[in-house]
Amino acid sequence: MMNRQIVLAARPTGAAGVEHFRLQEAPIPSVGEGEVLVKTRFFSVDPYMRMRMNDVKSYAPPQKLNEVMGGGSAGIVVESRFSGLVAGDAVVMGGGWQEYALLPGKTLRKVDASALPLEAYLGPAGMTGVTAWHGLFNIIAPKAGETVLVSAAAGAVGSVVGQLAKQVGARVVGVAGGAEKCRHVVDDLGFDACVDYKAGDLAAALQAACPDGIDGIFENVGGVVMDTALRHINTFGRVAICGLISGGYGGGKMPMADITMLLTQRVLVKGFILSDHADVFPVALPALATKVAAGEIKWRRTITRGIENGAAAFIGMLAGANIGKALVEV
Amino acid sequence: MMNRQIVLAARPTGAAGVEHFRLQEAPIPSVGEGEVLVKTRFFSVDPYMRMRMNDVKSYAPPQKLNEVMGGGSAGIVVESRFSGLVAGDAVVMGGGWQEYALLPGKTLRKVDASALPLEAYLGPAGMTGVTAWHGLFNIIAPKAGETVLVSAAAGAVGSVVGQLAKQVGARVVGVAGGAEKCRHVVDDLGFDACVDYKAGDLAAALQAACPDGIDGIFENVGGVVMDTALRHINTFGRVAICGLISGGYGGGKMPMADITMLLTQRVLVKGFILSDHADVFPVALPALATKVAAGEIKWRRTITRGIENGAAAFIGMLAGANIGKALVEV
Repeated sequence: MMNRQIVLAARPTGAAGVEHFRLQEAPIPSVGEGEVLVKTRFFSVDPYMRMRMNDVKSYAPPQKLNEVMGGGSAGIVVESRFSGLVAGDAVVMGGGWQEYALLPGKTLRKVDASALPLEAYLGPAGMTGVTAWHGLFNIIAPKAGETVLVSAAAGAVGSVVGQLAKQVGARVVGVAGGAEKCRHVVDDLGFDACVDYKAGDLAAALQAACPDGIDGIFENVGGVVMDTALRHINTFGRVAICGLISGGYGGGKMPMADITMLLTQRVLVKGFILSDHADVFPVALPALATKVAAGEIKWRRTITRGIENGAAAFIGMLAGANIGKALVEV
Repeated sequence: MMNRQIVLAARPTGAAGVEHFRLQEAPIPSVGEGEVLVKTRFFSVDPYMRMRMNDVKSYAPPQKLNEVMGGGSAGIVVESRFSGLVAGDAVVMGGGWQEYALLPGKTLRKVDASALPLEAYLGPAGMTGVTAWHGLFNIIAPKAGETVLVSAAAGAVGSVVGQLAKQVGARVVGVAGGAEKCRHVVDDLGFDACVDYKAGDLAAALQAACPDGIDGIFENVGGVVMDTALRHINTFGRVAICGLISGGYGGGKMPMADITMLLTQRVLVKGFILSDHADVFPVALPALATKVAAGEIKWRRTITRGIENGAAAFIGMLAGANIGKALVEV
């Protein structure tokens, strides 16, 4: 039996495409002391992976060429030589884009697949949810009555940000691309409003949706959406920069049109990456799992079936084809 | 006896000039209960005043047309109907650009003009020094061995920032315009290096001066200096935005060329204005006065004599004609 894997075949110079990946087969390795072999059920395709495809210094080391694409995944233990896990256990791991992952047992997180669907632990009850939690509570720290703007509001992180912000009494406005996403953001997720940035006059729509200005921006996108939002930022506003996907992460520049408001409104801007904040997980993970199980955090996933479609799922996610968490079911 | 005053005569549409001000005479008002009449000795001309000349919402309310230009000043009490002050006392006040100021006694700060020259209380031992203190210690919070970059390093605020940062063991690099300012910054103020942004290859000079990257940026200028510095920012870098004078404060946009590093290096950017931070004064003022008196904070002033030259002094300061604190001696 062989292990099918997707490796990075070439580094893109501009937009990433499926041609930069290669599906290959490799033998399933034998399990050493302390190791665990896991059959992958789902792997996550995330914007940050595009940045790792570049061979430049960034917050994550570059993805190596001809090696299995790294990333979060979830599956079922097949064989364990690690004391804390046995065959059949459901685990979340950094297993990457492959059918079987062999990992040190101590790097796996055992999860309760009867409490939540397994893939939830890659989404709102996993790193995705904790990312939302950290940026919202530890950087924006919204107060009741404040207005929080969330870009990529229909995405995996944005959808959780908005629901958490609603729960502390903020007015929550999403920005998303297209009527279907905006409908989902308002009707299903409960945001107060959602601005369709593809629909025309972004500035007027943002102003109408944020009559009291904007106190916090959870930024996943950058570019014109952020620039427009900043024109409405209130005194002591906070901007958590989680992603800048509108720039494509291809190594090009991502300008900010006008930083005058950062001075005159005394705004805080903070870029973050969750891997710096291990201390947040023990706080956020149990709370998030409880909220997801109770239906207090609603979520959708866009699941692509078959590892052979993994690269296409990733490229589609970069283009905004997904609603909610983008996953590949192996 | 009349009171000569400079009022704002017109709002500039582009660059500010002396033609936007008018020198006028007014009667010296009589002193009411709780009030104090002060003969101005010095008034301060500061970059933020340019912003107040615009009729737009900003951190300070607009300067009103045909009213005395507001701002910090220092002088000697002529007549007091306030219990805490008597004629002859030296005070610092918000007296603006005029020969005599009538103010509520409770708004005046009595200072010891025998410990320091009176004008020091408008400079390193006054709001200027506290501005440096707050941005450096409360936003950048440099550690020993870190590199702090200070733009407008020969200016009133920047010169204090760099000396305070040296005292906590940081490597301090200034940016200033011209060889004379850079010489002053290194030889007189003790910065480790100073980059002359007018001298040519700013990027190469910054890189050479900051071999270990940049951990903190005290930003007074914005534009190409800030953009270039940000390319060298280290992980968890902090940027305190105190001013953006390169934009001229005329209402135009001040772009940032590339914010990618804010995300990938997890940088904090914070705009601030000292008037939000009244709590810093009681901590910083005594410490600054002690350091200035002990020669641990060196400072220069560029003094323009005669209120009739006040507007020209202000316009010159905006163009960078001053070294150290820009003051008008009345």
